[in-house]
Amino acid sequence: MKLASFRTFGYDSYGVVTENGIVDAAPAAHELGATLREALERGSLGALAEYAASATDRLAWTNVELLPVIPDPQKILCVGINYLSHVKETGREVPDKPMLFVRFAQSQTAHEGPMVRPLASERLDFEGELAVVIGKHGRHIKAADAFDMIAGYSCYNDGSIRDWQRHTSQFTPGKNFPCTGGFGPWLVTADEVGDPSRLSLTTRLNGEVMQQATTDDLIFPVPQLIEYCSTFCALSPGDVIITGTTGGVGAYRNPPLWMKARDVVEVEISRIGTLRNIVVDELVSGNVRDADVARESLEQGRA
Amino acid sequence: MKLASFRTFGYDSYGVVTENGIVDAAPAAHELGATLREALERGSLGALAEYAASATDRLAWTNVELLPVIPDPQKILCVGINYLSHVKETGREVPDKPMLFVRFAQSQTAHEGPMVRPLASERLDFEGELAVVIGKHGRHIKAADAFDMIAGYSCYNDGSIRDWQRHTSQFTPGKNFPCTGGFGPWLVTADEVGDPSRLSLTTRLNGEVMQQATTDDLIFPVPQLIEYCSTFCALSPGDVIITGTTGGVGAYRNPPLWMKARDVVEVEISRIGTLRNIVVDELVSGNVRDADVARESLEQGRA
Repeated sequence: MKLASFRTFGYDSYGVVTENGIVDAAPAAHELGATLREALERGSLGALAEYAASATDRLAWTNVELLPVIPDPQKILCVGINYLSHVKETGREVPDKPMLFVRFAQSQTAHEGPMVRPLASERLDFEGELAVVIGKHGRHIKAADAFDMIAGYSCYNDGSIRDWQRHTSQFTPGKNFPCTGGFGPWLVTADEVGDPSRLSLTTRLNGEVMQQATTDDLIFPVPQLIEYCSTFCALSPGDVIITGTTGGVGAYRNPPLWMKARDVVEVEISRIGTLRNIVVDELVSGNVRDADVARESLEQGRA
Repeated sequence: MKLASFRTFGYDSYGVVTENGIVDAAPAAHELGATLREALERGSLGALAEYAASATDRLAWTNVELLPVIPDPQKILCVGINYLSHVKETGREVPDKPMLFVRFAQSQTAHEGPMVRPLASERLDFEGELAVVIGKHGRHIKAADAFDMIAGYSCYNDGSIRDWQRHTSQFTPGKNFPCTGGFGPWLVTADEVGDPSRLSLTTRLNGEVMQQATTDDLIFPVPQLIEYCSTFCALSPGDVIITGTTGGVGAYRNPPLWMKARDVVEVEISRIGTLRNIVVDELVSGNVRDADVARESLEQGRA
């Protein structure tokens, strides 16, 4: 099952992605939950599947603006330096513990939403990653039991402002600019993805392959990440763990490669889908105008 | 005005602290907001003051269990290494940018609540800090305009699990164990605190002074922190900036000093009040029993 969060006809909702449109969960929200996070919290995915199977109405994609898969996670835990190939390009040592930093929900952007290059910096970089969405409450979860915690997977672009990431030892500022964390297009439930260590991940910038990896190269695989994270905090439904990026980021290219307005960046993961964002410049007055430009450019690109 | 969040008679609320008890905002929640964060979001503090002035009912302290001042902030931004005296004890260089890491709301604990030493480590340390509570939405705020963003101030104990903080370069794990971030006892509105660079801060462990500073020693004062943070993220009502700790933490003592079960740790800030927590050990089955032990010990300590 593919699940998406979206805005349609002036309200925010979520639902099931089908071949001929989206089944909106809103008519059953009182039973299933008003948001995808709430549906996970209530353990409603089974009931949602039944609802979708019997529903006849579909929202057309043209009437839907996707939101980040989970627009309002309580926690987004981001893993740094988790692919051997990325460790090599950064010149760091192979870590013996997962390196974890945090992204706030407000830094996210949706599939086909703008990724904003801020006024404060020109050094906007991409990081294609596998995102794990937590489906249950849990603490002190052993790796052997970790798969039971997972609702599903999605694509993430952990867009980074490299100079702000390096202001001090802590990455926080460079990972929290608004509209830099691409999250989409949808959540694919764990049963449909199977083994998360057998996926291939590709990041493309304007169609050119920038990053290419298979998730069996993860230094800390998904179950180990869940064990480690759940030791220092309780995991909750809707929490997101983004599992780290691989080699090929712009910052370590020679010369460095920074994304600029109208660039189209895609993160594709097998069995999941392709997350696509277009880069826009931050405007002093906000990003509304540029977001429209972004949408037009994407539509021209598809035409 | 002093504002507190609390649990009473089975519901969560907030209200105004007065000399003879708390004015519960719950009867006016539809107008003022259901939580202190929501009251800030709605700009209700003026109306709340009027409501409290005309209210005759008071909740007795014995009927109230305080919650963290803001139980559910969207963002808790924590500043590291922000007092010159603490920089010296860590042997680091004076930073030219604020060092920022993140604490999740779920890691917090209230005034007179337990501070939990986890099963995973014995290295629980204290960090007394001044907390700034944001009252408005804002981005790209200049330091000169920053005071307008501040709802008020409180005490914070940024309890840290030192070995987990040092697992990698990123502090996240060591700063997010459950019930390690003491936040209280209340918020004192900015008008009553005045200049936040003229406060004195004292941390005591079992009555003995461990940290002592004045906030004029901050490398990045409050307005500069707001300018820096609002450049990389939009600040929102209820967001918390904890401004860093001073010299004297347990980790840099010789020999190192770790907190243990039944220790009482206090953070006192002039013009604000004293935040007090008691250390309890994490139990495999949860902390309920130990929290009761903690409360009994506190009550005996006061008797």
